[in-house]
Amino acid sequence: MTRHYNFCAGPAALPTAVLERARDELLDYRGRGLSVMEMSHRSPAYVAIAEKAEADLRELLAIPANYKVLFTQGGATQQFAAVPYNLLGPGGRASFLNTGIWSKKAIAEARHLFGDVHLAAGSDGNGHTAVPRPEEVVLCNDAAYLHYTANETIGGLAFDYIPEAVRPDGSEAPLVCDMSSTILSGPLDVSKFGVIYAGAQKNIGPAGLVVVIVRDDLLDRARDDMPTLFGYQALAEAGSMINTPATYSWYLAGLVFEWLKDDVGGLAAMEAINARKAARLYGAIDASDFYSNPIAVANRSRMNVPFVLSDPRLETPFLADAEAEGLLNLQGHRSVGGMRASLYNAVPEAAVEALVDFMADFERRRG
Amino acid sequence: MTRHYNFCAGPAALPTAVLERARDELLDYRGRGLSVMEMSHRSPAYVAIAEKAEADLRELLAIPANYKVLFTQGGATQQFAAVPYNLLGPGGRASFLNTGIWSKKAIAEARHLFGDVHLAAGSDGNGHTAVPRPEEVVLCNDAAYLHYTANETIGGLAFDYIPEAVRPDGSEAPLVCDMSSTILSGPLDVSKFGVIYAGAQKNIGPAGLVVVIVRDDLLDRARDDMPTLFGYQALAEAGSMINTPATYSWYLAGLVFEWLKDDVGGLAAMEAINARKAARLYGAIDASDFYSNPIAVANRSRMNVPFVLSDPRLETPFLADAEAEGLLNLQGHRSVGGMRASLYNAVPEAAVEALVDFMADFERRRG
Repeated sequence: MTRHYNFCAGPAALPTAVLERARDELLDYRGRGLSVMEMSHRSPAYVAIAEKAEADLRELLAIPANYKVLFTQGGATQQFAAVPYNLLGPGGRASFLNTGIWSKKAIAEARHLFGDVHLAAGSDGNGHTAVPRPEEVVLCNDAAYLHYTANETIGGLAFDYIPEAVRPDGSEAPLVCDMSSTILSGPLDVSKFGVIYAGAQKNIGPAGLVVVIVRDDLLDRARDDMPTLFGYQALAEAGSMINTPATYSWYLAGLVFEWLKDDVGGLAAMEAINARKAARLYGAIDASDFYSNPIAVANRSRMNVPFVLSDPRLETPFLADAEAEGLLNLQGHRSVGGMRASLYNAVPEAAVEALVDFMADFERRRG
Repeated sequence: MTRHYNFCAGPAALPTAVLERARDELLDYRGRGLSVMEMSHRSPAYVAIAEKAEADLRELLAIPANYKVLFTQGGATQQFAAVPYNLLGPGGRASFLNTGIWSKKAIAEARHLFGDVHLAAGSDGNGHTAVPRPEEVVLCNDAAYLHYTANETIGGLAFDYIPEAVRPDGSEAPLVCDMSSTILSGPLDVSKFGVIYAGAQKNIGPAGLVVVIVRDDLLDRARDDMPTLFGYQALAEAGSMINTPATYSWYLAGLVFEWLKDDVGGLAAMEAINARKAARLYGAIDASDFYSNPIAVANRSRMNVPFVLSDPRLETPFLADAEAEGLLNLQGHRSVGGMRASLYNAVPEAAVEALVDFMADFERRRG
């Protein structure tokens, strides 16, 4: 068995220790004679797994008691629809910060379903190389909520602050965040948010699961004509089991949460590791004229590091040579090209060292 | 490692051979140095897995070329919403056969979202112990489609024929079937259907995946105000990858399809095994005054066999003794009580033999 270094943007690397445990338990979960995949979601054994996962996530993120945690399906993309269904009251508009491709997808779905949306600020003007400054964020008085994307996975652009969602009349709007690619990468003040959602396939677990964290006072605002499975209130009342949930993905997420707690030592420790990994790679890029990254330093993503080579014709050999060295999935998103190294929690520091060494070697040989 | 006999109604038993292969490939998929869970859904290795799964499913069910196969999320329950969004044209109504709890859930969601629905026939009158006869099925002229549930997983009631969806004016309506608990249990004439959908967690794979088989001419009828991820047309155009699909569940479904082809020998062979399993258990129930099943013989489900004991006070010891013998998950659905043995494809004939032996022994001891 070989485990290469995997820089995929998602579905992304999982901790080897988590996969080993999943493997050891795959046919027989702790002597019960069946796989977790084969358990009724209503069985005491499975309910214990599900509840432990939620409790560990609550502990890791210090989620206040007045928030519900939902484990649902359809990825962040389904939440692009579910959020307005749940939060757009009569006459309200969704207000957005637009910082790149994932912001635009969320905006497009709200517009598709509910027509007019409001743009509170955006970074189109700088080619999405820097997020709007706090004072540029201007809501409308009919903003039902403010939505932003904490980290643009494709652009490698990250917020360095939590925006304030205050309407011109001084009232506060719920802050909604797509945190798919940064959740659990470090400590977080959940109390600043109305809704946080995150597709699992970066820092949580396998694809096909999405975690939603929603403040209690936002549970009663949903539209009547909403598909039942979208409803935060209904999901909360059913413990995310309106119907059969993605049981095995939920279990794996629980193993990741245990790994973060027990092996890593919590999110402060995780953040320190992530900071070192990002500093090492950006440092190597900045020290070279051969590699470059266009993002304003304050907004550089620690999770997704896009970079280009000074000679684009060298991209194909770069990727081929990297793969031959066991450095996988360094190609940029198909919509933008170039390279991208995703440094999620499960990517070890040794992977970044190997990548930096490879980049230096490639530059020596081909630069 | 121990593998008990698992009669769970879903998430249900998976073939041991499938789980062994998944275990062996979990950390390193065939020398590629990463888990299937960690692969980009756009990577050639993953696309090959996804395409092989679809090809094998097409071969098993002999799906005609004018049907699309979609691998999506949210379970059958999400399809209760997606079907009317996709098929209800302007002014059309959904027409339903009501044969029990899952029919009612599909009806409730269509009514919740779109108001009036039509009831073409139902079995409320006989307590859902026999399905309506073919001549009792009467559509309305504005029926956009006829929906039925091939097998009521909770009630253990199965159709012994494929209904005809002909409106009073003689025109044909698309036939839509929730086939969650019978798909792949035997050969099927897909050409009779407009849409077939099935939650994976019975005969396909792990929970969190739903397979939709849809005829090409039905792809252009969707409502404009539909959540993007519900759209059959959009899913078909994107190869079920509008966003990241449930990649690992899809892979496991592919392993199940391979097992059905290579180990079982196809769906005719599978059907023969399933027929023997069901005959053995119903035979034991009918030969005893201690156990009973209320369903009309022609409509008895081969997949889900509910039964009760003549003395309900013996249910708890029955379940406890069964579990002690390694016969798991025989309790009936929480909404109806009693016992239920689900005999999906992955439940071996030896499991049914063990159950029948246990039932006889329990009757001797406690009857």
